[in-house]
Amino acid sequence: MDDSLLRSCYEGGVTQAARSRLGVDERRKQLLDLALELFGNRSYDEISIDEIAKEAGISKGLLYHYFPSKRAFFVAAVEAAAERLLESTEVETQGEVPTLDEMREGVTRYLDYVDRHARNYLLLVRGGDGVDEEVRGIVDRTRLAFLERVRAAAALLPKSPEVDITLRGYIGYVETVSLEWVEHKRLTRDALADLIVRQCIALFSTVQL
Amino acid sequence: MDDSLLRSCYEGGVTQAARSRLGVDERRKQLLDLALELFGNRSYDEISIDEIAKEAGISKGLLYHYFPSKRAFFVAAVEAAAERLLESTEVETQGEVPTLDEMREGVTRYLDYVDRHARNYLLLVRGGDGVDEEVRGIVDRTRLAFLERVRAAAALLPKSPEVDITLRGYIGYVETVSLEWVEHKRLTRDALADLIVRQCIALFSTVQL
Repeated sequence: MDDSLLRSCYEGGVTQAARSRLGVDERRKQLLDLALELFGNRSYDEISIDEIAKEAGISKGLLYHYFPSKRAFFVAAVEAAAERLLESTEVETQGEVPTLDEMREGVTRYLDYVDRHARNYLLLVRGGDGVDEEVRGIVDRTRLAFLERVRAAAALLPKSPEVDITLRGYIGYVETVSLEWVEHKRLTRDALADLIVRQCIALFSTVQL
Repeated sequence: MDDSLLRSCYEGGVTQAARSRLGVDERRKQLLDLALELFGNRSYDEISIDEIAKEAGISKGLLYHYFPSKRAFFVAAVEAAAERLLESTEVETQGEVPTLDEMREGVTRYLDYVDRHARNYLLLVRGGDGVDEEVRGIVDRTRLAFLERVRAAAALLPKSPEVDITLRGYIGYVETVSLEWVEHKRLTRDALADLIVRQCIALFSTVQL
């Protein structure tokens, strides 16, 4: 067998697969953008599979190829909101633990996400009509991911029940102030980021070592 | 007309009315207890009007006399959970502002409610299948009532955007740590009450005056 033919077949196959894979990923991303827009703005029951397919400009059959049900489409939207929030708020730390500036940068990015995607954030932290165990699982895992980030930042603190419960409380506090802020905007983003960093430190400074 | 006859008729009427009013209130209270038990333990869709009437030992007709729909029954349960939480955590203050001991007493009673009525507390702060605008309204009003209590306790603080957002954040923090605590009980009630009081003070001490 001709080696170069084999190689060109193989490479052709790879290229084709890569191209079609890219198409699939791209389509999936577009569908998730649409899902975030639809479920972010209206209730679960108000949105039909027919409407989703129409908005996406694809057949119901193709839509079902990507997401087997409206429920699956909704869950994927919540998952996407969670991933995007986690990704967009990741700050690279220069030292072992983040500096105050790095902490503030992380909080600032978090508030930027809340500001730009307020309805998706709401979908994530407050749930909605479509909330069930699966969605709660996504939300809980997202909270845990943030909690572990904060734990890593507070590396000097012991792993104790007091620290654990304070970490949870801090996440609940951040979600509440973010929702309140984005609704009324009575502080600038930077003033709130400063306040959150100060209050984070204040909370953990009370933990008994 | 005979005065004494008039009086006895009138008194008879009052007594009868009072007796029947008491019956109505008593029945309503029993129905609300049942609603809190049912909706606290199972999802909204799982519970039928037939089952409620059967559990209450009354006819569906009489049940509808008290609550015109399952929805109304559910809303009344959430309202009752909110009222009972607010009532059971009210602490009389001796001075102008609560002392540390009075603060701790309020927090302790709150944790006692969470402990004894964990599922109703969950119904209140996390919502569930039956959540809509009306239920959110009850939950928001309850949060506001607690917020105003904390504001009164922190009488020396100005009414500023920073204080307002910290009040909200504190309520979110308390709800989160309470849910975490009641699920895992890794701290004693008193240790957590101490931690919450310390962290409340720490949060507000960061606010710029």
